[in-house]
Amino acid sequence: MIDDRNCQIPESGAVRMGHGSGGRLSRELLEDLILPALGEAGPEGLEDGAVFVPPPGELVFTTDSHVVTPLEFPGGDLGRLCVAGTVNDLAMMGARPLALSLGLILEEGLPLATLRRLMESLGRTAGEAGVKVLCGDTKVVERGKGDGIFANTSGIGVRFHAPDAQLIREGDAILINGDIGDHGFTLLTLRKGFPLQSPLQSDAAPLNHLVEALCAQVPVRWMRDPTRGGVATSLCELSEGKPWSVTLDEPSLPLNPAVSGLSEILGLDPLYSANEGKFLAVVPQESVATALEILRAHPLGKKAAHIGTVTREHPGKLLVRTAFGNRRVLGMLASDPLPRIC
Amino acid sequence: MIDDRNCQIPESGAVRMGHGSGGRLSRELLEDLILPALGEAGPEGLEDGAVFVPPPGELVFTTDSHVVTPLEFPGGDLGRLCVAGTVNDLAMMGARPLALSLGLILEEGLPLATLRRLMESLGRTAGEAGVKVLCGDTKVVERGKGDGIFANTSGIGVRFHAPDAQLIREGDAILINGDIGDHGFTLLTLRKGFPLQSPLQSDAAPLNHLVEALCAQVPVRWMRDPTRGGVATSLCELSEGKPWSVTLDEPSLPLNPAVSGLSEILGLDPLYSANEGKFLAVVPQESVATALEILRAHPLGKKAAHIGTVTREHPGKLLVRTAFGNRRVLGMLASDPLPRIC
Repeated sequence: MIDDRNCQIPESGAVRMGHGSGGRLSRELLEDLILPALGEAGPEGLEDGAVFVPPPGELVFTTDSHVVTPLEFPGGDLGRLCVAGTVNDLAMMGARPLALSLGLILEEGLPLATLRRLMESLGRTAGEAGVKVLCGDTKVVERGKGDGIFANTSGIGVRFHAPDAQLIREGDAILINGDIGDHGFTLLTLRKGFPLQSPLQSDAAPLNHLVEALCAQVPVRWMRDPTRGGVATSLCELSEGKPWSVTLDEPSLPLNPAVSGLSEILGLDPLYSANEGKFLAVVPQESVATALEILRAHPLGKKAAHIGTVTREHPGKLLVRTAFGNRRVLGMLASDPLPRIC
Repeated sequence: MIDDRNCQIPESGAVRMGHGSGGRLSRELLEDLILPALGEAGPEGLEDGAVFVPPPGELVFTTDSHVVTPLEFPGGDLGRLCVAGTVNDLAMMGARPLALSLGLILEEGLPLATLRRLMESLGRTAGEAGVKVLCGDTKVVERGKGDGIFANTSGIGVRFHAPDAQLIREGDAILINGDIGDHGFTLLTLRKGFPLQSPLQSDAAPLNHLVEALCAQVPVRWMRDPTRGGVATSLCELSEGKPWSVTLDEPSLPLNPAVSGLSEILGLDPLYSANEGKFLAVVPQESVATALEILRAHPLGKKAAHIGTVTREHPGKLLVRTAFGNRRVLGMLASDPLPRIC
């Protein structure tokens, strides 16, 4: 039990180089701050590694480092992103999360209160996803050699569904579980200091329960979480080098009005903006109604939509059909208009 | 196949923010530099995650981030540390490495040639250990917000032996596979610019084959790789809160003469200096001869030694018996005389 432990580290303190020494101070940071903040989602012991017996079946292994700036933003923070990013990567491969690792790189001077809030958020988000952090590691770099906190979360999952892109056929539908670009636009407005008339917040969320519900009833052929690079980059990857094309139907893309308005003012395309709680799914045409019903019944899928189709013209390309009936080809995001969004 | 791919990225280039965008430039960095450099040890595809079927048994999950500075040093580099650190953590828990992940945090401006050398070294070391990198992730931070490259390697292993510290008895022997403190002293001399008369280099190495050979014949009760904090901190952890003490026999500690000389000049104790290719093992007294024979027959164990004993006096403490017959109590490393050594 760690809950009733007296806290040795004052809320007002800051990360010191000795917290990365591997000695006494490292232990204190772990025992007095990180483990209590993670709570039920944290590891039980202080060992370097964790032993577990996986259920039978295929395992999926994935890793994600997080360097988001600022560390906290409307709708989320680095801790929430750590869990959402890794759990969603697992879910996209049809895997239920079994275990997370947590590798922290702290900058000397990071307020311990900030670290505590991020770890509490990480613990809460892990609770939402139903997964635990089984092992961890903490390093500290000198002031000016990092940026507050960088965190890596690797994850192990067990497969409940094996998406198979080889089954994709002309006419298959592209679905998404809600508004696109919220995460990227939230960070953009925050960094640029734009005043917003309507509230906008990051969509960061672990999607595993929603994905599992969908896959239980629908033969999902491909899934992807359109994080960095956005929906357009993910769909370019779906079509590139393939005998099919993907045609997006622009008017059917679900959009928060705030994102829609900002995108006109700023000339930034929500199709290339990052999402942290959205996924794209390719399903057979005949499963669209069932799939949308399942998605919309879940809090994270209320605005689910059928946004595109697997097509035959211009194989290998991603096309978008505009409200005016024009079609144009979209490429991958080449460079990054908004770095460090996750 | 990736070997015959034309290299798009010139050797003279540097990491740019776009390499972390998740778009085209990220793909190029991965396909044209990272995957070819990792070679046989790299993943086969570009997916975010990897699917694998583990052998039956208990799995071990571990994670390590690496922030060493400088990135390259005699006897190793960040790439070699990534593999050695994680593989050794698995080995200490009696696990054979099955899969590694690789999460890179690159600083804008890092020479691509440096990145390539580190990834080649990582690939070679993974080859030595007989493990592959199955999945990865790359982020880029602005110049001045990182320090060249930080890397996380998480690892999954399958257990061949379950060390059980509850079996530890008075009289059990503490063994180590060779000279202590080489890694820490190598970095110290490099950073301080000390000229050395005799060559000194880091011991960074994956120990899994040696550990597996030992455990196949000897009932090893506890193992630990004395990295940050050194041998003393690891042995404090072995005795802390336990009904036994550990008594180190100072004259029997294997030491490179260069480390021995430097430690006198600098007043730095090799017992608190980091190792990256050493491990401590607790074995029953009657297994000492067999254990030393197995260790010394391996290139990474030539200077293996029996350095201490589980004792009864002063339970919970680490004691050291000096060459003059005195005994003193050693504590954990409190702060860090030499930060960022791994």
